[in-house]
Amino acid sequence: MGNSYGTLFRISTFGESHGKAVGVVIDGCPAGLAMDEAFIQRELDRRKPGQSRITTQRKEADTFQILSGVFEGVTQGTPISMLVPNEDARSKDYAHLAHQYRPSHADYTYQQKYGTRDYRGGGRSSARETVARVAAGAVAKLLLQSLSVSIRAYVSQVGKLKLAMPYPELDLAQAETNAVRCPDPAMAERMFAFIDETRKNGDSVGGVVSCVIQGVPPGWGEPVFDKLHAELAKAMMGINAVKGFEYGSGFAGVEMYGSEHNDAFYTDAKPGDNGGRVKTRTNHSGGIQGGISNGEDIYFRVAFKPVATLMRDQESVSDEGESVTVTGKGRHDPCVVPRAVPIVEAMAALVLADFYLRNKVARVGLADSE
Amino acid sequence: MGNSYGTLFRISTFGESHGKAVGVVIDGCPAGLAMDEAFIQRELDRRKPGQSRITTQRKEADTFQILSGVFEGVTQGTPISMLVPNEDARSKDYAHLAHQYRPSHADYTYQQKYGTRDYRGGGRSSARETVARVAAGAVAKLLLQSLSVSIRAYVSQVGKLKLAMPYPELDLAQAETNAVRCPDPAMAERMFAFIDETRKNGDSVGGVVSCVIQGVPPGWGEPVFDKLHAELAKAMMGINAVKGFEYGSGFAGVEMYGSEHNDAFYTDAKPGDNGGRVKTRTNHSGGIQGGISNGEDIYFRVAFKPVATLMRDQESVSDEGESVTVTGKGRHDPCVVPRAVPIVEAMAALVLADFYLRNKVARVGLADSE
Amino acid sequence: MGNSYGTLFRISTFGESHGKAVGVVIDGCPAGLAMDEAFIQRELDRRKPGQSRITTQRKEADTFQILSGVFEGVTQGTPISMLVPNEDARSKDYAHLAHQYRPSHADYTYQQKYGTRDYRGGGRSSARETVARVAAGAVAKLLLQSLSVSIRAYVSQVGKLKLAMPYPELDLAQAETNAVRCPDPAMAERMFAFIDETRKNGDSVGGVVSCVIQGVPPGWGEPVFDKLHAELAKAMMGINAVKGFEYGSGFAGVEMYGSEHNDAFYTDAKPGDNGGRVKTRTNHSGGIQGGISNGEDIYFRVAFKPVATLMRDQESVSDEGESVTVTGKGRHDPCVVPRAVPIVEAMAALVLADFYLRNKVARVGLADSE
Amino acid sequence: MGNSYGTLFRISTFGESHGKAVGVVIDGCPAGLAMDEAFIQRELDRRKPGQSRITTQRKEADTFQILSGVFEGVTQGTPISMLVPNEDARSKDYAHLAHQYRPSHADYTYQQKYGTRDYRGGGRSSARETVARVAAGAVAKLLLQSLSVSIRAYVSQVGKLKLAMPYPELDLAQAETNAVRCPDPAMAERMFAFIDETRKNGDSVGGVVSCVIQGVPPGWGEPVFDKLHAELAKAMMGINAVKGFEYGSGFAGVEMYGSEHNDAFYTDAKPGDNGGRVKTRTNHSGGIQGGISNGEDIYFRVAFKPVATLMRDQESVSDEGESVTVTGKGRHDPCVVPRAVPIVEAMAALVLADFYLRNKVARVGLADSE
Repeated sequence: MGNSYGTLFRISTFGESHGKAVGVVIDGCPAGLAMDEAFIQRELDRRKPGQSRITTQRKEADTFQILSGVFEGVTQGTPISMLVPNEDARSKDYAHLAHQYRPSHADYTYQQKYGTRDYRGGGRSSARETVARVAAGAVAKLLLQSLSVSIRAYVSQVGKLKLAMPYPELDLAQAETNAVRCPDPAMAERMFAFIDETRKNGDSVGGVVSCVIQGVPPGWGEPVFDKLHAELAKAMMGINAVKGFEYGSGFAGVEMYGSEHNDAFYTDAKPGDNGGRVKTRTNHSGGIQGGISNGEDIYFRVAFKPVATLMRDQESVSDEGESVTVTGKGRHDPCVVPRAVPIVEAMAALVLADFYLRNKVARVGLADSE
Repeated sequence: MGNSYGTLFRISTFGESHGKAVGVVIDGCPAGLAMDEAFIQRELDRRKPGQSRITTQRKEADTFQILSGVFEGVTQGTPISMLVPNEDARSKDYAHLAHQYRPSHADYTYQQKYGTRDYRGGGRSSARETVARVAAGAVAKLLLQSLSVSIRAYVSQVGKLKLAMPYPELDLAQAETNAVRCPDPAMAERMFAFIDETRKNGDSVGGVVSCVIQGVPPGWGEPVFDKLHAELAKAMMGINAVKGFEYGSGFAGVEMYGSEHNDAFYTDAKPGDNGGRVKTRTNHSGGIQGGISNGEDIYFRVAFKPVATLMRDQESVSDEGESVTVTGKGRHDPCVVPRAVPIVEAMAALVLADFYLRNKVARVGLADSE
Repeated sequence: MGNSYGTLFRISTFGESHGKAVGVVIDGCPAGLAMDEAFIQRELDRRKPGQSRITTQRKEADTFQILSGVFEGVTQGTPISMLVPNEDARSKDYAHLAHQYRPSHADYTYQQKYGTRDYRGGGRSSARETVARVAAGAVAKLLLQSLSVSIRAYVSQVGKLKLAMPYPELDLAQAETNAVRCPDPAMAERMFAFIDETRKNGDSVGGVVSCVIQGVPPGWGEPVFDKLHAELAKAMMGINAVKGFEYGSGFAGVEMYGSEHNDAFYTDAKPGDNGGRVKTRTNHSGGIQGGISNGEDIYFRVAFKPVATLMRDQESVSDEGESVTVTGKGRHDPCVVPRAVPIVEAMAALVLADFYLRNKVARVGLADSE
Repeated sequence: MGNSYGTLFRISTFGESHGKAVGVVIDGCPAGLAMDEAFIQRELDRRKPGQSRITTQRKEADTFQILSGVFEGVTQGTPISMLVPNEDARSKDYAHLAHQYRPSHADYTYQQKYGTRDYRGGGRSSARETVARVAAGAVAKLLLQSLSVSIRAYVSQVGKLKLAMPYPELDLAQAETNAVRCPDPAMAERMFAFIDETRKNGDSVGGVVSCVIQGVPPGWGEPVFDKLHAELAKAMMGINAVKGFEYGSGFAGVEMYGSEHNDAFYTDAKPGDNGGRVKTRTNHSGGIQGGISNGEDIYFRVAFKPVATLMRDQESVSDEGESVTVTGKGRHDPCVVPRAVPIVEAMAALVLADFYLRNKVARVGLADSE
């Protein structure tokens, strides 16, 4: 259980790190959507290993194929299944882990839960599974693009190196111009050097991915348990290595007074004009009030811990309960955030596509364009 | 949609702030659980308004009744429905809001989504809805108590007043001895004074609730999308006014190296002894690895923004798009965290009860005691 | 589990036969629907006990109240909860059943499954639970009425007394003019006499309810597992005492050749006219092809077994495994079909309302009116 | 939507008749189950086309591959994905159908619902999709075999040729010895001849598949909406060409008195013996009371209409609304029931595996073996 996400735009992913393939089935993508396969491949390429020397050296083309659900380039309303084969799995690198638990990995908990585990490359708990999410998220993005909704994530912190500026002062398009995916080129260079140094030390380091969503009309999100930000939180916390989530004012909002924090409404209508849009003067709400989008920008931050795989010896126990030393082998990212950027975007796209569809049944007589 | 939570231990809440009643239906509570009604009432009393002068002065006995699912004091495996009547709703305090949107409330977004809204006391978006969660959470707690799982939340921050000590250095039982629910009595006094002063200024302030869960065996939580911490995040973010969630090392973990952050495994077994328990030397993982509990303490923090209702004039717009001044009326909490403590515990209990049940089908031949 | 029905228009019922009340929560009814409470009460009255001497003599006003989800007569998109109190429960009539299993009742299976049971009046397994379905179904009917969809059920068989004519040859409005709810008045009289005689013998008898749905546009129903007729089957089989379901040609279709059975398409357009509707010359498909409505009438038949409660002594065992004689006490219907008519309609309405909403997200750019 | 089935043992199928492959993902199969791949292949072979001259001549090896979820021959608790490639799709046979609607097929309804359709071989609505169900059902059967539950379906009627004997008088093992899958060899021959003659006439004919499930302990099935027989009905009605479902006494039960129909309980215990099993003297209940298994045999019947594809000219309309003649081309089964036998079994296995798991959380302290 737990391998599906979404209510109406629903995905189910499958596959282990060293199995034959990783894949996804999307059930609920509306019919009639043009499937831009080149776009999907570009999204996968953004997540692909081996992009620079600060990412894992596993070599995977990550070329996807669509097995169903698309006919003559158009979605059919039937399940869309996509497959990405595993090509460069080096399972023997993991043979020594068959009976050892790597610290802060899922080895021990999987073994306890299931009484068995595929220890090769982390099996199902490997971040390799996220390739399926990026493929599905790309389809969600195509749907959202048709609605003029854009999603942009970027690295805002690595270790203690932190971007001081909030997103409106940044040129987010710059994020894709460097290996770190930080929109401030000078900071990107410092982050790169720091990650590279950490890598050489056989160590790893954490980071923060920030994300901005623009163009969402008022009304997306469901009250009470399925608030828009609650689903975003769940979706982000489901990404490997994530430890925290905040949106709008976030943890900093705790220290504000209500009189500072409240976002005053105003209208951009001229006097006598009925067609004005309701806006807010500030946006501490992060574009969401009562769990429902209010038409302002949605933005949030996602905290990633340092990757658990180290090129160092570590104390641990075996599955027989004996003390062992786990040695550092295998390939890994010293810092996960550069490659996490497209994953954060993909999960955000899946959340939004789902809420877009859910909102279509919110009221009697709601036309599609609303 | 969005008014249900849980997969196997599933609740559906209903009711508006000024409607006849707020209630909940639990579908999936196992049969054979002794229903301690006095305990449930005590939990409701912890959330009740009017506990001190720093909470809202609305007078509600919050006396619940069970309508179904319990026979001769024992759950029957059938839906348990519980009802709490609304007694002290003063709807006329809200008449002026029929056509105005309160800043940072859900008035505007509900109107946009549904084309209609119950403006009295916030309607469905009111935190009054959480009384239903506390009632259901109390039932979940009864189930968890039978498994020796304990859940304890407390206030760790109000505005800039922050508890410096981590939970192992605190006597959490102290939290219930003061109106703020902060386990450090000296800090509790300072927080109380600060909230009270804020209240007198007609303003509001935010805070943080921390929560510790002890006694969860390894194996609870589902991989990939329904990770234990992902569901905790969703459940917490679904509470009114929550802006952020972190577990274990959280956002602070970002700044650590992997070599500091990793939790080394060891066993408390003596040499030759097979029965040792696997433990970790540190617990930056917050008791969860790969989305599954590892047997260590689970702990997390929840950020609450300042309450949106102020006793002040605020700029806004009407539902006709005209500029208006919203005046401060009605009753409210100047700081939500003292009463949020039992709500955080209730939602945590609902998450855990659900994962307990889900884990019972994880593997062939898994006996109930595992 | 198992007490909820529907994907988007989702109901959860609760309550036992002799508990305080029976009720339902609807989550997913669109906002903006005018709530005609008098209509809902009329639907409940059709199901109410004590309508004639061939129905149970339990006296229940079955007056419902709405606790939430409706404001100023209009649905708000929030959960609609409705409650019907139990007034005439005579629990002492059932005291002798605390340790006996009535033949062909759910006493034994509930005890085996849950290890406990509310034996008073059948507890949760009582057909009293269907009052909640009729209330929810009435709301679904209001939604469908706004879309010009009509649902009409009637009694077509009691024991061996069987209406020979198919529905197009009947005046279905006649069904509500007699206590049996058979649209052929002469047959209705014979059925009434037969049921009454059966009742006097302390016995019970089965019957068939037929149902016709008109006005459903093409496109409702989902492929593969959630076919329109598959959900209708599930919904009908979930009604107490139902043993079989067939739609369109049903079991009789088995004996036909494909060349007889196939429904030829034609169009009622005139030459050169593009706006014609596609129709079928026959309707063995029962208005559904590939699980999706094709615009023709949907019709189906539901088989009800004789009620298990008899006014006679019956052989059985106790919960200690000893042979006992169960004596006939309590109040019951000698034939369930007259009161099952509104229940069949209610369940059909719930299925259709759900598929109406589900179809709104089937394709990109689908306007609400389609 | 609608391409998934099951609550805990949940499958999602994908693939079109002439796409690259048909496949399934199982999420929720417990870990630790030995995966007998040869058994799965045998089940697929039973459904395979081209078994005799009375089945379609499409040539498909239907060799499956497992892509995930199994490691060293054992299920891991992670999603099991299985793929069956399409090898002998002759799409050009269907080119003439790009703009025509075949009578009693899903062509018209898919076009209306989705605004597009894959017309090649029926696309997603083709019975080819059921290969995925048989693969998943085989895994469910492996789980059930470990619990000593057996499922056996057979052909009991073809056109007007009907087996007179109820299942206890038949040797069900005989069913697999002939091409029709009828356990009475003499009747099987007559059926074969009749189907063959129908085929030569370019026509098709319907049939009935009966199914018997043995070894289910008391307690499987959920009350109210998810009754065991309600889910069986939904699962069977979701199979292509099914028009009706009945269990136990079924439609014939309508004509019985309660005094005949009720199944008297008795115990096979000897006097003074506590360990006796509770049994029923008759089994009109079909092994299910109140939606929950009572330990007796479960049996039901499924009605299949004649296949819609004929080798004859038929009247229809084009997607432009013009009258056309659809000519008979392509390959098809003249009677679907022989190959439907393993599909009925597969769907029954999926229902039962799901209820087995759901029952494990029905009560506090329920051990796995119960």
